[in-house]
Amino acid sequence: MRFSLTSQTSTDGVTEQSFTLGEIPGVLFTPQGAIGPRPLILVGHGGGQHKKAPGVLAGAHQFAAEGGFAVAAIDAPNHGDRPKDEQFIRLAGDMRARMAAGEDPIGLVVAMHDLLAGQAVADWQAVLTAVQELDHVGAGPVGYWGVSMGCGLGVPLLAAEPRISAAVLGLLGVPGLAETAARVTVPVQFLLQWDDTLVRRDQALALFDALGSTDKTLHANPGDHGEIPAFETDNALQFFARHLG
Amino acid sequence: MRFSLTSQTSTDGVTEQSFTLGEIPGVLFTPQGAIGPRPLILVGHGGGQHKKAPGVLAGAHQFAAEGGFAVAAIDAPNHGDRPKDEQFIRLAGDMRARMAAGEDPIGLVVAMHDLLAGQAVADWQAVLTAVQELDHVGAGPVGYWGVSMGCGLGVPLLAAEPRISAAVLGLLGVPGLAETAARVTVPVQFLLQWDDTLVRRDQALALFDALGSTDKTLHANPGDHGEIPAFETDNALQFFARHLG
Repeated sequence: MRFSLTSQTSTDGVTEQSFTLGEIPGVLFTPQGAIGPRPLILVGHGGGQHKKAPGVLAGAHQFAAEGGFAVAAIDAPNHGDRPKDEQFIRLAGDMRARMAAGEDPIGLVVAMHDLLAGQAVADWQAVLTAVQELDHVGAGPVGYWGVSMGCGLGVPLLAAEPRISAAVLGLLGVPGLAETAARVTVPVQFLLQWDDTLVRRDQALALFDALGSTDKTLHANPGDHGEIPAFETDNALQFFARHLG
Repeated sequence: MRFSLTSQTSTDGVTEQSFTLGEIPGVLFTPQGAIGPRPLILVGHGGGQHKKAPGVLAGAHQFAAEGGFAVAAIDAPNHGDRPKDEQFIRLAGDMRARMAAGEDPIGLVVAMHDLLAGQAVADWQAVLTAVQELDHVGAGPVGYWGVSMGCGLGVPLLAAEPRISAAVLGLLGVPGLAETAARVTVPVQFLLQWDDTLVRRDQALALFDALGSTDKTLHANPGDHGEIPAFETDNALQFFARHLG
Protein backbone atom coordinates (compact mmCIF):
# COMPACT_ATOMS: atom_id res chain seq x y z
CA MET A 1 0.00 0.00 0.00
CA ARG A 2 1.19 3.48 -0.85
CA PHE A 3 1.76 5.93 2.05
CA SER A 4 1.22 9.61 1.12
CA LEU A 5 1.37 12.68 3.32
CA THR A 6 -1.36 14.99 2.01
CA SER A 7 -1.23 18.08 4.24
CA GLN A 8 0.47 19.48 7.33
CA THR A 9 -0.44 22.08 9.94
CA SER A 10 0.93 22.96 13.37
CA THR A 11 -1.04 24.26 16.37
CA ASP A 12 0.08 24.83 19.96
CA GLY A 13 3.29 22.87 19.55
CA VAL A 14 1.73 19.86 17.78
CA THR A 15 2.13 19.06 14.09
CA GLU A 16 -0.78 17.27 12.38
CA GLN A 17 0.10 15.43 9.16
CA SER A 18 -2.83 14.05 7.19
CA PHE A 19 -2.00 10.92 5.25
CA THR A 20 -3.48 8.11 3.24
CA LEU A 21 -2.23 4.55 3.30
CA GLY A 22 -3.90 2.88 0.32
CA GLU A 23 -7.57 3.64 0.98
CA ILE A 24 -7.10 4.40 4.71
CA PRO A 25 -7.27 8.10 5.65
CA GLY A 26 -5.33 9.03 8.78
CA VAL A 27 -3.66 11.76 10.79
CA LEU A 28 -0.27 11.65 12.49
CA PHE A 29 0.30 13.95 15.46
CA THR A 30 3.86 14.68 16.64
CA PRO A 31 5.48 17.36 18.77
CA GLN A 32 6.35 20.32 16.52
CA GLY A 33 9.92 20.01 15.27
CA ALA A 34 10.13 16.35 16.38
CA ILE A 35 13.35 14.63 15.33
CA GLY A 36 14.18 10.97 15.87
CA PRO A 37 12.25 7.96 17.19
CA ARG A 38 9.59 8.12 19.90
CA PRO A 39 6.83 5.91 21.35
CA LEU A 40 3.65 5.75 19.24
CA ILE A 41 0.01 5.71 20.41
CA LEU A 42 -2.73 4.50 18.07
CA VAL A 43 -6.08 6.16 18.82
CA GLY A 44 -9.28 4.39 17.72
CA HIS A 45 -12.43 6.55 17.61
CA GLY A 46 -15.96 5.67 18.73
CA GLY A 47 -18.90 4.51 16.62
CA GLY A 48 -20.14 7.20 14.22
CA GLN A 49 -17.05 9.32 14.88
CA HIS A 50 -13.89 9.79 12.79
CA LYS A 51 -10.13 10.38 12.96
CA LYS A 52 -10.52 14.05 13.94
CA ALA A 53 -13.49 13.81 16.31
CA PRO A 54 -13.13 16.23 19.27
CA GLY A 55 -12.25 13.47 21.77
CA VAL A 56 -9.58 12.06 19.45
CA LEU A 57 -8.05 15.49 18.81
CA ALA A 58 -7.97 16.41 22.51
CA GLY A 59 -6.24 13.19 23.54
CA ALA A 60 -3.85 13.18 20.58
CA HIS A 61 -2.74 16.77 21.21
CA GLN A 62 -2.18 16.15 24.91
CA PHE A 63 -0.23 12.91 24.30
CA ALA A 64 2.00 14.66 21.71
CA ALA A 65 2.43 18.00 23.47
CA GLU A 66 2.86 16.82 27.06
CA GLY A 67 4.27 13.33 26.55
CA GLY A 68 6.30 13.78 23.37
CA PHE A 69 4.49 10.82 21.79
CA ALA A 70 3.66 10.27 18.15
CA VAL A 71 -0.10 9.61 17.80
CA ALA A 72 -1.84 8.06 14.80
CA ALA A 73 -5.61 8.19 14.25
CA ILE A 74 -7.41 6.67 11.26
CA ASP A 75 -10.99 6.49 10.05
CA ALA A 76 -12.43 3.08 10.94
CA PRO A 77 -14.00 1.13 8.05
CA ASN A 78 -17.28 2.81 6.97
CA HIS A 79 -16.46 5.92 9.01
CA GLY A 80 -15.22 9.48 8.32
CA ASP A 81 -13.96 9.93 4.76
CA ARG A 82 -14.35 6.24 3.85
CA PRO A 83 -17.19 4.86 1.73
CA LYS A 84 -20.08 3.13 3.51
CA ASP A 85 -21.29 -0.29 2.33
CA GLU A 86 -24.88 -1.51 2.36
CA GLN A 87 -24.48 -3.94 5.24
CA PHE A 88 -23.05 -1.18 7.44
CA ILE A 89 -25.81 1.28 6.50
CA ARG A 90 -28.50 -1.30 7.31
CA LEU A 91 -26.93 -2.22 10.67
CA ALA A 92 -26.39 1.42 11.67
CA GLY A 93 -30.02 2.18 10.84
CA ASP A 94 -31.26 -0.79 12.87
CA MET A 95 -29.08 0.32 15.79
CA ARG A 96 -30.43 3.88 15.73
CA ALA A 97 -34.01 2.56 15.57
CA ARG A 98 -33.47 0.23 18.50
CA MET A 99 -31.87 2.97 20.62
CA ALA A 100 -34.66 5.43 19.71
CA ALA A 101 -37.14 2.79 20.94
CA GLY A 102 -35.28 2.66 24.26
CA GLU A 103 -34.17 -0.94 23.70
CA ASP A 104 -30.71 -2.37 24.48
CA PRO A 105 -28.78 -2.34 21.18
CA ILE A 106 -25.97 -4.64 22.41
CA GLY A 107 -26.75 -7.44 19.93
CA LEU A 108 -26.43 -5.03 17.02
CA VAL A 109 -23.33 -3.40 18.55
CA VAL A 110 -21.67 -6.82 18.64
CA ALA A 111 -22.73 -7.46 15.03
CA MET A 112 -21.35 -4.07 13.97
CA HIS A 113 -17.97 -4.65 15.62
CA ASP A 114 -17.84 -8.14 14.10
CA LEU A 115 -18.52 -6.63 10.69
CA LEU A 116 -15.69 -4.09 11.03
CA ALA A 117 -13.06 -5.87 13.13
CA GLY A 118 -11.28 -7.89 10.45
CA GLN A 119 -10.65 -4.87 8.23
CA ALA A 120 -9.93 -2.59 11.22
CA VAL A 121 -7.22 -4.90 12.57
CA ALA A 122 -5.58 -5.19 9.14
CA ASP A 123 -5.75 -1.38 8.71
CA TRP A 124 -4.07 -0.71 12.06
CA GLN A 125 -1.33 -3.27 11.41
CA ALA A 126 -0.53 -1.67 8.04
CA VAL A 127 -0.63 1.87 9.49
CA LEU A 128 1.62 0.87 12.38
CA THR A 129 4.20 -0.50 9.95
CA ALA A 130 4.00 2.54 7.68
CA VAL A 131 4.23 5.32 10.30
CA GLN A 132 7.10 3.60 12.11
CA GLU A 133 9.10 3.96 8.89
CA LEU A 134 9.00 7.76 9.31
CA ASP A 135 12.17 9.22 10.86
CA HIS A 136 10.27 11.19 13.53
CA VAL A 137 8.30 8.10 14.67
CA GLY A 138 10.65 5.11 14.33
CA ALA A 139 10.34 1.62 15.77
CA GLY A 140 9.70 2.48 19.44
CA PRO A 141 7.13 1.02 21.84
CA VAL A 142 3.47 1.21 20.77
CA GLY A 143 0.27 1.80 22.76
CA TYR A 144 -3.42 1.80 21.84
CA TRP A 145 -6.20 4.08 23.13
CA GLY A 146 -9.83 3.31 22.24
CA VAL A 147 -13.17 3.29 24.07
CA SER A 148 -16.66 2.19 23.03
CA MET A 149 -16.27 1.06 19.37
CA GLY A 150 -12.57 1.90 19.75
CA CYS A 151 -12.53 -0.81 22.44
CA GLY A 152 -14.63 -3.22 20.38
CA LEU A 153 -12.10 -3.01 17.54
CA GLY A 154 -9.12 -2.56 19.87
CA VAL A 155 -9.58 -5.84 21.75
CA PRO A 156 -9.19 -7.98 18.57
CA LEU A 157 -6.28 -5.75 17.51
CA LEU A 158 -4.48 -6.30 20.83
CA ALA A 159 -5.18 -10.04 20.67
CA ALA A 160 -3.63 -10.20 17.18
CA GLU A 161 -0.78 -7.67 17.26
CA PRO A 162 2.27 -8.29 19.47
CA ARG A 163 3.87 -4.91 18.69
CA ILE A 164 1.32 -3.11 20.95
CA SER A 165 2.45 -3.26 24.57
CA ALA A 166 -0.11 -1.20 26.57
CA ALA A 167 -3.69 -0.05 26.05
CA VAL A 168 -6.44 2.19 27.40
CA LEU A 169 -9.83 0.60 26.70
CA GLY A 170 -13.38 0.79 28.07
CA LEU A 171 -16.98 1.95 27.64
CA LEU A 172 -18.02 -1.47 26.36
CA GLY A 173 -19.46 -4.71 27.70
CA VAL A 174 -18.37 -8.30 27.40
CA PRO A 175 -20.92 -9.74 24.91
CA GLY A 176 -19.06 -11.20 21.95
CA LEU A 177 -15.63 -10.33 23.36
CA ALA A 178 -14.92 -12.73 26.24
CA GLU A 179 -12.67 -15.14 24.34
CA THR A 180 -10.79 -12.43 22.47
CA ALA A 181 -10.32 -10.38 25.66
CA ALA A 182 -8.77 -13.39 27.37
CA ARG A 183 -5.99 -13.29 24.75
CA VAL A 184 -5.10 -9.68 25.65
CA THR A 185 -2.13 -9.83 28.02
CA VAL A 186 -0.59 -6.35 27.94
CA PRO A 187 -1.15 -3.76 30.71
CA VAL A 188 -4.61 -2.17 30.37
CA GLN A 189 -6.29 0.86 31.89
CA PHE A 190 -10.05 0.25 31.50
CA LEU A 191 -12.55 3.15 31.68
CA LEU A 192 -16.09 2.55 32.89
CA GLN A 193 -18.82 5.17 33.23
CA TRP A 194 -20.87 4.29 36.30
CA ASP A 195 -24.14 5.71 34.91
CA ASP A 196 -23.63 4.61 31.29
CA THR A 197 -27.04 4.36 29.61
CA LEU A 198 -25.60 2.53 26.57
CA VAL A 199 -23.45 -0.10 28.30
CA ARG A 200 -24.68 -2.24 31.20
CA ARG A 201 -22.46 -1.90 34.28
CA ASP A 202 -22.32 -5.64 34.95
CA GLN A 203 -21.33 -6.33 31.34
CA ALA A 204 -18.58 -3.68 31.45
CA LEU A 205 -17.24 -5.12 34.74
CA ALA A 206 -17.33 -8.55 33.09
CA LEU A 207 -15.25 -7.31 30.13
CA PHE A 208 -12.64 -5.91 32.56
CA ASP A 209 -12.73 -9.26 34.32
CA ALA A 210 -12.30 -11.18 31.05
CA LEU A 211 -9.10 -9.39 30.01
CA GLY A 212 -6.16 -11.78 30.25
CA SER A 213 -3.79 -9.07 31.49
CA THR A 214 -2.28 -9.48 34.95
CA ASP A 215 -1.59 -5.73 35.05
CA LYS A 216 -4.98 -4.07 34.51
CA THR A 217 -6.74 -1.24 36.33
CA LEU A 218 -10.41 -0.32 36.17
CA HIS A 219 -11.17 3.40 36.43
CA ALA A 220 -14.89 3.97 37.06
CA ASN A 221 -16.35 7.48 37.20
CA PRO A 222 -19.90 8.80 37.63
CA GLY A 223 -21.69 9.97 34.49
CA ASP A 224 -23.06 8.73 31.19
CA HIS A 225 -21.29 7.13 28.20
CA GLY A 226 -19.81 10.35 26.81
CA GLU A 227 -18.89 11.94 30.13
CA ILE A 228 -15.37 10.61 30.86
CA PRO A 229 -13.73 13.23 33.13
CA ALA A 230 -10.89 15.24 31.59
CA PHE A 231 -8.45 13.99 34.26
CA GLU A 232 -8.66 10.50 32.73
CA THR A 233 -6.64 11.87 29.79
CA ASP A 234 -3.95 12.86 32.33
CA ASN A 235 -4.18 9.34 33.78
CA ALA A 236 -3.86 7.79 30.31
CA LEU A 237 -0.79 9.93 29.62
CA GLN A 238 0.84 8.80 32.87
CA PHE A 239 -0.08 5.18 32.10
CA PHE A 240 1.50 5.36 28.64
CA ALA A 241 4.56 7.18 30.01
CA ARG A 242 4.99 4.38 32.57
CA HIS A 243 4.67 1.55 30.06
CA LEU A 244 6.10 3.03 26.83
CA GLY A 245 8.44 5.74 28.16
CA MET B 1 -5.75 18.01 75.52
CA ARG B 2 -2.02 18.57 75.75
CA PHE B 3 0.04 18.32 72.53
CA SER B 4 3.65 17.18 73.06
CA LEU B 5 6.35 16.48 70.51
CA THR B 6 8.30 13.53 71.89
CA SER B 7 11.01 12.80 69.32
CA GLN B 8 12.23 13.83 65.89
CA THR B 9 14.22 12.13 63.13
CA SER B 10 14.85 12.92 59.47
CA THR B 11 15.33 10.40 56.64
CA ASP B 12 15.56 10.96 52.89
CA GLY B 13 14.27 14.51 53.06
CA VAL B 14 11.34 13.77 55.38
CA THR B 15 11.15 14.77 59.06
CA GLU B 16 9.15 12.45 61.35
CA GLN B 17 7.97 14.03 64.61
CA SER B 18 6.40 11.66 67.12
CA PHE B 19 3.75 13.32 69.29
CA THR B 20 1.05 12.63 71.83
CA LEU B 21 -2.21 14.55 72.02
CA GLY B 22 -3.68 13.59 75.36
CA GLU B 23 -3.69 9.78 75.13
CA ILE B 24 -3.41 9.66 71.32
CA PRO B 25 0.04 8.67 69.97
CA GLY B 26 0.83 10.02 66.53
CA VAL B 27 3.50 10.88 63.98
CA LEU B 28 3.73 14.00 61.84
CA PHE B 29 5.67 13.78 58.57
CA THR B 30 6.81 16.98 56.84
CA PRO B 31 9.41 17.80 54.18
CA GLN B 32 12.76 18.33 55.92
CA GLY B 33 13.24 22.01 56.69
CA ALA B 34 9.58 22.80 56.01
CA ILE B 35 8.61 26.40 56.80
CA GLY B 36 5.09 27.84 56.59
CA PRO B 37 1.66 26.38 55.90
CA ARG B 38 0.96 23.43 53.59
CA PRO B 39 -1.87 21.00 52.83
CA LEU B 40 -2.29 18.18 55.35
CA ILE B 41 -3.12 14.52 54.74
CA LEU B 42 -4.46 12.35 57.57
CA VAL B 43 -3.53 8.68 57.10
CA GLY B 44 -5.67 6.04 58.84
CA HIS B 45 -4.11 2.58 59.15
CA GLY B 46 -5.75 -0.82 58.64
CA GLY B 47 -7.08 -3.22 61.26
CA GLY B 48 -4.36 -4.68 63.50
CA GLN B 49 -1.83 -2.15 62.15
CA HIS B 50 -0.51 1.07 63.69
CA LYS B 51 0.71 4.60 62.92
CA LYS B 52 4.08 3.39 61.57
CA ALA B 53 2.98 0.27 59.69
CA PRO B 54 4.95 -0.18 56.44
CA GLY B 55 2.06 0.92 54.19
CA VAL B 56 1.49 4.06 56.27
CA LEU B 57 5.19 4.96 56.26
CA ALA B 58 5.57 4.43 52.52
CA GLY B 59 2.59 6.63 51.64
CA ALA B 60 3.44 9.30 54.22
CA HIS B 61 7.04 9.60 53.02
CA GLN B 62 6.00 9.84 49.37
CA PHE B 63 3.28 12.44 50.09
CA ALA B 64 5.74 14.57 52.11
CA ALA B 65 8.82 14.15 49.91
CA GLU B 66 7.22 14.37 46.47
CA GLY B 67 4.15 16.48 47.19
CA GLY B 68 5.40 18.75 49.97
CA PHE B 69 2.42 17.73 52.14
CA ALA B 70 2.28 17.45 55.91
CA VAL B 71 1.03 13.96 56.85
CA ALA B 72 -0.36 12.92 60.23
CA ALA B 73 -0.83 9.29 61.29
CA ILE B 74 -2.19 8.17 64.66
CA ASP B 75 -2.83 4.86 66.37
CA ALA B 76 -6.52 4.00 66.12
CA PRO B 77 -8.29 3.20 69.40
CA ASN B 78 -7.07 -0.22 70.74
CA HIS B 79 -4.18 -0.25 68.23
CA GLY B 80 -0.43 0.38 68.32
CA ASP B 81 0.76 1.91 71.56
CA ARG B 82 -2.78 2.37 72.97
CA PRO B 83 -4.29 0.11 75.64
CA LYS B 84 -6.76 -2.59 74.48
CA ASP B 85 -10.13 -2.96 76.24
CA GLU B 86 -11.97 -6.25 76.86
CA GLN B 87 -14.68 -5.71 74.27
CA PHE B 88 -12.05 -5.10 71.57
CA ILE B 89 -10.00 -8.16 72.58
CA ARG B 90 -13.10 -10.37 72.46
CA LEU B 91 -14.21 -9.05 69.06
CA ALA B 92 -10.71 -9.35 67.57
CA GLY B 93 -10.49 -12.94 68.81
CA ASP B 94 -13.89 -13.82 67.33
CA MET B 95 -12.85 -12.26 64.03
CA ARG B 96 -9.62 -14.25 63.86
CA ALA B 97 -11.50 -17.45 64.67
CA ARG B 98 -14.11 -16.83 62.00
CA MET B 99 -11.46 -16.06 59.36
CA ALA B 100 -9.44 -19.13 60.35
CA ALA B 101 -12.60 -21.18 59.81
CA GLY B 102 -12.91 -19.75 56.30
CA GLU B 103 -16.13 -17.89 57.12
CA ASP B 104 -17.02 -14.34 56.05
CA PRO B 105 -16.15 -12.06 59.01
CA ILE B 106 -18.08 -9.04 57.67
CA GLY B 107 -20.59 -8.94 60.54
CA LEU B 108 -17.75 -8.77 63.09
CA VAL B 109 -15.85 -6.26 60.95
CA VAL B 110 -18.90 -3.98 61.03
CA ALA B 111 -19.20 -4.47 64.81
CA MET B 112 -15.50 -3.65 65.24
CA HIS B 113 -15.70 -0.45 63.21
CA ASP B 114 -18.86 0.55 65.11
CA LEU B 115 -17.02 -0.02 68.38
CA LEU B 116 -14.10 2.20 67.34
CA ALA B 117 -15.67 4.87 65.12
CA GLY B 118 -16.95 7.31 67.75
CA GLN B 119 -13.57 7.59 69.48
CA ALA B 120 -11.65 7.50 66.18
CA VAL B 121 -13.61 10.43 64.73
CA ALA B 122 -13.12 12.49 67.91
CA ASP B 123 -9.38 11.62 67.88
CA TRP B 124 -8.91 12.76 64.29
CA GLN B 125 -10.82 15.99 64.85
CA ALA B 126 -8.63 16.85 67.85
CA VAL B 127 -5.41 15.89 66.02
CA LEU B 128 -6.41 17.95 62.98
CA THR B 129 -6.95 21.02 65.16
CA ALA B 130 -3.68 20.48 67.06
CA VAL B 131 -1.32 19.88 64.14
CA GLN B 132 -2.76 22.78 62.15
CA GLU B 133 -1.58 25.05 64.98
CA LEU B 134 2.03 24.17 64.13
CA ASP B 135 3.78 26.79 62.00
CA HIS B 136 5.00 24.26 59.40
CA VAL B 137 1.48 22.79 58.92
CA GLY B 138 -0.97 25.70 59.29
CA ALA B 139 -4.64 25.89 58.33
CA GLY B 140 -4.44 24.69 54.72
CA PRO B 141 -6.64 22.20 52.89
CA VAL B 142 -6.96 18.72 54.43
CA GLY B 143 -7.23 15.26 52.85
CA TYR B 144 -7.74 11.77 54.26
CA TRP B 145 -6.20 8.45 53.13
CA GLY B 146 -7.46 5.19 54.62
CA VAL B 147 -8.33 1.73 53.29
CA SER B 148 -9.86 -1.35 54.96
CA MET B 149 -10.38 -0.32 58.61
CA GLY B 150 -8.95 3.08 57.60
CA CYS B 151 -11.98 3.32 55.30
CA GLY B 152 -14.41 1.98 57.89
CA LEU B 153 -13.34 4.73 60.32
CA GLY B 154 -12.73 7.29 57.54
CA VAL B 155 -16.26 7.25 56.15
CA PRO B 156 -17.82 8.42 59.47
CA LEU B 157 -14.99 10.95 59.84
CA LEU B 158 -15.69 12.41 56.38
CA ALA B 159 -19.43 12.47 57.08
CA ALA B 160 -18.81 14.42 60.32
CA GLU B 161 -15.86 16.69 59.56
CA PRO B 162 -16.23 19.52 57.01
CA ARG B 163 -12.55 20.51 57.13
CA ILE B 164 -11.58 17.43 55.06
CA SER B 165 -12.05 18.14 51.37
CA ALA B 166 -10.76 15.02 49.52
CA ALA B 167 -10.20 11.36 50.40
CA VAL B 168 -8.69 8.10 49.19
CA LEU B 169 -10.75 5.19 50.55
CA GLY B 170 -11.38 1.54 49.68
CA LEU B 171 -10.82 -2.16 50.48
CA LEU B 172 -14.15 -2.34 52.29
CA GLY B 173 -17.76 -3.28 51.55
CA VAL B 174 -21.03 -1.50 52.13
CA PRO B 175 -22.53 -3.42 55.13
CA GLY B 176 -23.20 -0.96 57.94
CA LEU B 177 -21.94 2.04 55.96
CA ALA B 178 -24.57 2.85 53.31
CA GLU B 179 -26.24 5.74 55.14
CA THR B 180 -23.02 7.26 56.39
CA ALA B 181 -21.38 6.94 52.96
CA ALA B 182 -24.29 8.84 51.40
CA ARG B 183 -23.32 11.83 53.57
CA VAL B 184 -19.77 11.89 52.13
CA THR B 185 -19.74 14.53 49.40
CA VAL B 186 -16.05 15.38 48.86
CA PRO B 187 -14.04 14.01 45.90
CA VAL B 188 -13.04 10.38 46.54
CA GLN B 189 -10.60 7.98 44.92
CA PHE B 190 -11.80 4.48 45.91
CA LEU B 191 -9.45 1.47 45.74
CA LEU B 192 -10.83 -2.01 45.12
CA GLN B 193 -8.81 -5.22 44.86
CA TRP B 194 -10.46 -7.41 42.23
CA ASP B 195 -9.46 -10.70 43.91
CA ASP B 196 -9.93 -9.57 47.52
CA THR B 197 -10.54 -12.63 49.69
CA LEU B 198 -11.64 -10.52 52.70
CA VAL B 199 -14.06 -8.12 51.00
CA ARG B 200 -16.77 -9.26 48.57
CA ARG B 201 -16.49 -7.53 45.20
CA ASP B 202 -20.21 -6.74 44.97
CA GLN B 203 -20.18 -5.21 48.45
CA ALA B 204 -17.13 -3.06 47.64
CA LEU B 205 -18.77 -1.88 44.40
CA ALA B 206 -21.90 -1.10 46.43
CA LEU B 207 -19.89 1.03 48.89
CA PHE B 208 -18.41 3.02 45.99
CA ASP B 209 -21.96 3.37 44.64
CA ALA B 210 -23.28 4.54 48.04
CA LEU B 211 -20.81 7.44 48.39
CA GLY B 212 -22.68 10.73 48.00
CA SER B 213 -19.78 12.38 46.14
CA THR B 214 -20.42 13.52 42.57
CA ASP B 215 -16.66 13.46 41.93
CA LYS B 216 -15.55 9.90 42.74
CA THR B 217 -13.36 7.43 40.87
CA LEU B 218 -13.09 3.68 41.45
CA HIS B 219 -9.63 2.20 40.84
CA ALA B 220 -9.83 -1.61 40.69
CA ASN B 221 -6.70 -3.73 40.34
CA PRO B 222 -6.09 -7.48 40.28
CA GLY B 223 -4.84 -9.07 43.46
CA ASP B 224 -5.82 -9.78 47.04
CA HIS B 225 -6.62 -7.41 49.92
CA GLY B 226 -3.04 -6.40 50.68
CA GLU B 227 -1.79 -6.22 47.11
CA ILE B 228 -2.56 -2.64 46.05
CA PRO B 229 -0.05 -1.81 43.29
CA ALA B 230 2.62 0.76 44.16
CA PHE B 231 1.46 3.04 41.35
CA GLU B 232 -1.75 3.70 43.28
CA THR B 233 0.36 5.76 45.72
CA ASP B 234 1.42 7.89 42.73
CA ASN B 235 -2.25 8.18 41.75
CA ALA B 236 -3.20 9.20 45.30
CA LEU B 237 -0.49 11.85 45.30
CA GLN B 238 -1.77 13.28 42.00
CA PHE B 239 -5.34 13.17 43.33
CA PHE B 240 -4.40 15.09 46.48
CA ALA B 241 -2.28 17.55 44.49
CA ARG B 242 -5.30 18.21 42.24
CA HIS B 243 -7.75 18.74 45.11
CA LEU B 244 -5.58 20.21 47.89
CA GLY B 245 -2.72 21.81 45.93
